[in-house]
Amino acid sequence: MPPVAVRHLNTTSADFETEFKRVLHWSAETDHAIEERVAAILEDVRTRGDAAVLEYTARFDALEAPSVAALELTREELQRAFDAITPAQRSALESAAKRVRAYHERQLQACGLSWSYRDEDGTLLGQKVTPLDRVGIYVPGGKAAYPSSVLMNAIPAHVAGVSDIVMVVPTPRGEKNALVLAAAYVAGVSRAFTIGGAQAVGALAHGTATVPRVDKITGPGNAYVASAKRRVFGQVGIDMIAGPSEILVLADGTTPPDWVAMDLFSQAEHDELAQSILLCPDAGYIAQVQASIDRLIDGMPRRDVIRASLEGRGALILTRDMEEACAISNRIAPEHLEVSSAEPHRWEPLLRHAGAIFLGAYTSESLGDYCAGPNHVLPTSGTARFSSPLGVYDFQKRSSLIEVSEAGAQQLGPIAAELAYGEGLQAHAQAAEFRLKRAE
Amino acid sequence: MPPVAVRHLNTTSADFETEFKRVLHWSAETDHAIEERVAAILEDVRTRGDAAVLEYTARFDALEAPSVAALELTREELQRAFDAITPAQRSALESAAKRVRAYHERQLQACGLSWSYRDEDGTLLGQKVTPLDRVGIYVPGGKAAYPSSVLMNAIPAHVAGVSDIVMVVPTPRGEKNALVLAAAYVAGVSRAFTIGGAQAVGALAHGTATVPRVDKITGPGNAYVASAKRRVFGQVGIDMIAGPSEILVLADGTTPPDWVAMDLFSQAEHDELAQSILLCPDAGYIAQVQASIDRLIDGMPRRDVIRASLEGRGALILTRDMEEACAISNRIAPEHLEVSSAEPHRWEPLLRHAGAIFLGAYTSESLGDYCAGPNHVLPTSGTARFSSPLGVYDFQKRSSLIEVSEAGAQQLGPIAAELAYGEGLQAHAQAAEFRLKRAE
Repeated sequence: MPPVAVRHLNTTSADFETEFKRVLHWSAETDHAIEERVAAILEDVRTRGDAAVLEYTARFDALEAPSVAALELTREELQRAFDAITPAQRSALESAAKRVRAYHERQLQACGLSWSYRDEDGTLLGQKVTPLDRVGIYVPGGKAAYPSSVLMNAIPAHVAGVSDIVMVVPTPRGEKNALVLAAAYVAGVSRAFTIGGAQAVGALAHGTATVPRVDKITGPGNAYVASAKRRVFGQVGIDMIAGPSEILVLADGTTPPDWVAMDLFSQAEHDELAQSILLCPDAGYIAQVQASIDRLIDGMPRRDVIRASLEGRGALILTRDMEEACAISNRIAPEHLEVSSAEPHRWEPLLRHAGAIFLGAYTSESLGDYCAGPNHVLPTSGTARFSSPLGVYDFQKRSSLIEVSEAGAQQLGPIAAELAYGEGLQAHAQAAEFRLKRAE
Repeated sequence: MPPVAVRHLNTTSADFETEFKRVLHWSAETDHAIEERVAAILEDVRTRGDAAVLEYTARFDALEAPSVAALELTREELQRAFDAITPAQRSALESAAKRVRAYHERQLQACGLSWSYRDEDGTLLGQKVTPLDRVGIYVPGGKAAYPSSVLMNAIPAHVAGVSDIVMVVPTPRGEKNALVLAAAYVAGVSRAFTIGGAQAVGALAHGTATVPRVDKITGPGNAYVASAKRRVFGQVGIDMIAGPSEILVLADGTTPPDWVAMDLFSQAEHDELAQSILLCPDAGYIAQVQASIDRLIDGMPRRDVIRASLEGRGALILTRDMEEACAISNRIAPEHLEVSSAEPHRWEPLLRHAGAIFLGAYTSESLGDYCAGPNHVLPTSGTARFSSPLGVYDFQKRSSLIEVSEAGAQQLGPIAAELAYGEGLQAHAQAAEFRLKRAE
């Protein structure tokens, strides 16, 4: 096989900025035709409910059913799937679920609890944190059916205290993925339907006679699902609109090059649009990683996808030093960021934007993807500049608590009234003034 | 003046469900014509930058300027506005800002700090919380120019540690609101431009030669602004798409009826689509509130808006008991929820969905709107089912931290590999296996 023609960039080259922008370029342009079709499907599901869901499931998934109820997976069916997989798979699913649950329980304690305090006037201020009532989890079917995603979406919802977790997963031609069903069993999904696409998003957002309306929809999907989620946003909550997956490896040259090459592969194997980038100040090391890539690729069953991804969107970038590599990483704001260095804690404080930061040579992204504990649903395409991993907080919402004491009302009333009159809102002002003790 | 014809409902009536749904009905249907115009404006600003912003500002705000730089408000101009308002206004703004800051600092401590722990294998897991780099705050101009909204958007960003806070505020015909400028001074806005509409959202989302690109845009606006925010979502973060403002008062009949009437007015005076609802198990008390409404309305400068809002969207609902009132409140998931009761802490635990909960007779919504401390940017139109008040957390994002120890890699590797092979992702599996010590 010919060597893998990954782009090599050098930050000292005159054309670096141009080349770098070309590597980063990713257009999330929405396809107008998809938008129109999705709008029509959503409207149809909203007005015709179950009948529309059945028709689209027959048309898009080649799955005929007499009713949407017939598309529901029972708890017994999920358990049978769990019983039918291998003992090693059962054990792996349960170990992963246990670690993911433990991490998200820590997250709940760290940032998901109600709090309040009283000020010197006896006025109580705080925030009450409550779980969402019901959430929908979209699980892709077909070639990218990932049981790990079931765990990563359902477990945080469960830890948050959501009582109703409704999973949808398309099963084209009725082919069910046993590991996905088993993961739903392990994760404690409340109900599950074998529906997908925009019609499943519409059913969850609006509710049908059979599919309950949810408060929020999370989980990845194809362009139709993404477009549908964007459209129902506001009607229900959504997590994020995911783009292609990315890894950025920041290497100081101390990790075995084969390890780094395989980590780059692990992103590239997802699909041809996935992006793998290496940033390193050591030209010799970059050459070693390239050699590892060329040697290892032939052994990979998904070598065609890996090659297409690395040649189309990958890059090996020589930097002046690690500080510059960190600065470039901040510009990229990658979904996955490996700090493959002997001194990861030296560089971590310099890294401001990333979905997940994997520290040290032993922390391959894949360990985090499956079982380290943190969530693998992460912001893509530079959105780590402003968004966060999926977490317990996505399945909770907050309500402000305010109890103004009589004494507090005397302090706050004149301030509120002054500002309200300034805004021309006299009823606001008088509502505050009514609580003042009149000078008698 | 004729009495205010607010709808009276009774939960024991046969037609209650029908009537109740009619009260709640609110269509957030987007206007297709607005959508198209906004899409064109955003695209124009993206490609032509400053020139497009100038043209739209001239066209929509009747404000001509030689350059976008000429539309920037200097720090000195903000300070001059602060110096020019009355001492009472200055003091009220500063007192409100101080209390809002104090509350959001508590919020930062309660749920906005980084955390990590090590498991028994020495593997570190946690989350690093960092502020966004730069945010844009949209402040409406014209008739609904609210200085309090400047404080409520800018202060949480400031407390979160955002270093660059860019405010945009349209100033039709060049008319500036001194209180808005003064509030920007008090809140510590970094830069401010007198631009608005979809063109301002586009400038913030994409950046122009003069307006810096931001990571997130918060703040309310008209239908054009809402549509523009929805469109740029993903490119940048946004807070929420706000609908008309609402208050729900849950009364046990112990609060002076005038106070409750004025609280209903304070919501109704915002605009004709604003919604004020009273839930109460005491028919006599409801009659007293109706009498207060009829007596007090003539004294309100904004009586026409108040009447239109109360008659069009308001309701006084007689319930069987307070428990039923709480259950109905949960169905509404109101933006503002007053528990106007002698026993607010008896009912608060029953209330699951609300943007802000105001406990006890002294806690008028208006005190919370301006200066109690919690944020007044709250989820509307039932979105409190799944979303939260604007807060410090909206101006932060989280990155997972994972450092797998060598020992941890031996535990996690086989689990990850088993699941990865199950998903057909062999590079994921091998990346984990490379970290295993080979049996030598």
